[in-house]
Amino acid sequence: MIVLAVTLKDIASLTGLSVSTISLIINNKPSRIPESTKIRVLNLVKELHYRPNQVALTLKKNKSKTIGIIVSDIQNSFYSGIAKGLEDECNKFGWNLILCNTSDRFEREYEYIEVLHSKGIDGIVLGMSATGSLKKAKKSIDLLDDKHIPFILLDRTMKTPTCNIVDVDSERGGYIATKHLIELGHTKIACVTGPTYLEGTYSRLKGFKKALHEYNYSTDSNMIYNGDYSYESGVSASKYFLGKDVSAIFAFNDIMAYGISQHFRTQGIIVPDDISIIGFDDIFYSQITDVPLTTIHQPTYQIGQKAGNILINIIEGIEKGPITFQFTPELVVRSSTKKFL
Amino acid sequence: MIVLAVTLKDIASLTGLSVSTISLIINNKPSRIPESTKIRVLNLVKELHYRPNQVALTLKKNKSKTIGIIVSDIQNSFYSGIAKGLEDECNKFGWNLILCNTSDRFEREYEYIEVLHSKGIDGIVLGMSATGSLKKAKKSIDLLDDKHIPFILLDRTMKTPTCNIVDVDSERGGYIATKHLIELGHTKIACVTGPTYLEGTYSRLKGFKKALHEYNYSTDSNMIYNGDYSYESGVSASKYFLGKDVSAIFAFNDIMAYGISQHFRTQGIIVPDDISIIGFDDIFYSQITDVPLTTIHQPTYQIGQKAGNILINIIEGIEKGPITFQFTPELVVRSSTKKFL
Repeated sequence: MIVLAVTLKDIASLTGLSVSTISLIINNKPSRIPESTKIRVLNLVKELHYRPNQVALTLKKNKSKTIGIIVSDIQNSFYSGIAKGLEDECNKFGWNLILCNTSDRFEREYEYIEVLHSKGIDGIVLGMSATGSLKKAKKSIDLLDDKHIPFILLDRTMKTPTCNIVDVDSERGGYIATKHLIELGHTKIACVTGPTYLEGTYSRLKGFKKALHEYNYSTDSNMIYNGDYSYESGVSASKYFLGKDVSAIFAFNDIMAYGISQHFRTQGIIVPDDISIIGFDDIFYSQITDVPLTTIHQPTYQIGQKAGNILINIIEGIEKGPITFQFTPELVVRSSTKKFL
Repeated sequence: MIVLAVTLKDIASLTGLSVSTISLIINNKPSRIPESTKIRVLNLVKELHYRPNQVALTLKKNKSKTIGIIVSDIQNSFYSGIAKGLEDECNKFGWNLILCNTSDRFEREYEYIEVLHSKGIDGIVLGMSATGSLKKAKKSIDLLDDKHIPFILLDRTMKTPTCNIVDVDSERGGYIATKHLIELGHTKIACVTGPTYLEGTYSRLKGFKKALHEYNYSTDSNMIYNGDYSYESGVSASKYFLGKDVSAIFAFNDIMAYGISQHFRTQGIIVPDDISIIGFDDIFYSQITDVPLTTIHQPTYQIGQKAGNILINIIEGIEKGPITFQFTPELVVRSSTKKFL
């Protein structure tokens, strides 16, 4: 059953006063209405849980105070961490958050941008789908631009003139992850990437190569496996590297690192005794697994908060895009990496 | 910058036709408008990405096709799994989902119900906060009833005349978890509960006691630790049981099971060699930790889907509440439990 919320009209008819009188009282506008009448109306307002109808307000002020977050997988705690920070920031300013999960499908991402626009959303925080192509990714950005929707890209970013970006410095992350493995004495270091058209993947790979170069190791293309940031592509990578001369693997995210270790374990290959593995993200579970994962920490909650803060500021006209904000990634050494003996 | 979506009026002024003519064409109503004009208008509609303004439609039809999900922690993959299933179900019917995270604070839960109502939401899926009291939990239900908001409770449920419930049969879950430990030869079995005013906690405890009773073991109140479903309360429980004569622990959720094992490990107590631990939920990470957790499987994605399906049906008047739908929990034996020798 659908029941309408209490309206000004309801309060007017219950009190025998006019709608404009009620409005003057509720909005605390100067008037000559007796104090006793004011108190009577305000008590009734409280009793009936009256709130100004936000849907009507949206039409009037042309602002819904609602933003959307589009992510590839809310079950990946990287994204749920971001959603939590973003939601907290929205809550602080009385904004709401619409959650859109694409299951990494581009078509659904594109559709969501259109739907959110038609619902009168004020802005979008977008973690692009990874299974698309560069061409498709550009299509989403074009749609956002066409509709004049303020948006923030996270993690899976592209550099375009209109993109606001909140993420971590991925090149630095890739560099310190690789350097950590080199300093442990590893020389046969492989990596498992995400889709290379994504800025984050490209930068991590750049950092990986930079560290190898600095120590005069060459980059062997056989040591680079193109994954897609999914658990399954970690498993595939582990099958690919099985039997190859590799002593350490840098997985471009934690979920793939889990896929790699898990499949290796089924083959009797133990982390870190037989192979060292370092991830990227530092999702919650990486600290509580029995072989806690060495990884590059991304402050997901703070990324979400910052994205919300910048987006709301842009919508309110307080800041002007394009804005890029990068957090500095940190190496977290746990138990999945050890000295090469 | 806020830019209005394209309106019927815009299309009218661009074509020099009347708004009513445009409306007839777009809604494919019978008319004597020439085919060529129709094609011209429909091409323009496509080109301008015109969509009927959903905000205006909400006022007109009094339906926002939007539901809210209020959870205690979206970073707990139990809830993100539910959110994913719920979001998929919403998407299937063209509905949207507003995400509200309470960080387990009752005040925020209560506030969210009011806010969602004022935003014209059609229904709410609620995972109640655990740190509240029975009195507070009832306050949320009362507010939902007062506002006539159709709602579904999940996981943390209470039985009231108006509650629709989608969850698993917790008593059966508690029973099979405990029976598993007994059949492994354990006789000193402890448990770590959630807040006892929650139906799910109460039922798990009932199942726990039922299994002990069936095997003629008495229930010792010193063996029951009252947790609150948080990782930290798992750590506290583990401190409480340290040094006590306990060979197996049934944690009422996986997150507390992690807290227990993690703290035991810091004390040199190894799962499952020194102590067996069984959880409840079967969140994603429980299968990929290095000592994979034995636990009671809850089909989170399906719970979310079912909750969405029932809620939308109730809102649309297809089903009539109160409805209770319970999934059957399943025991998943992994490596955190072993025979008592």
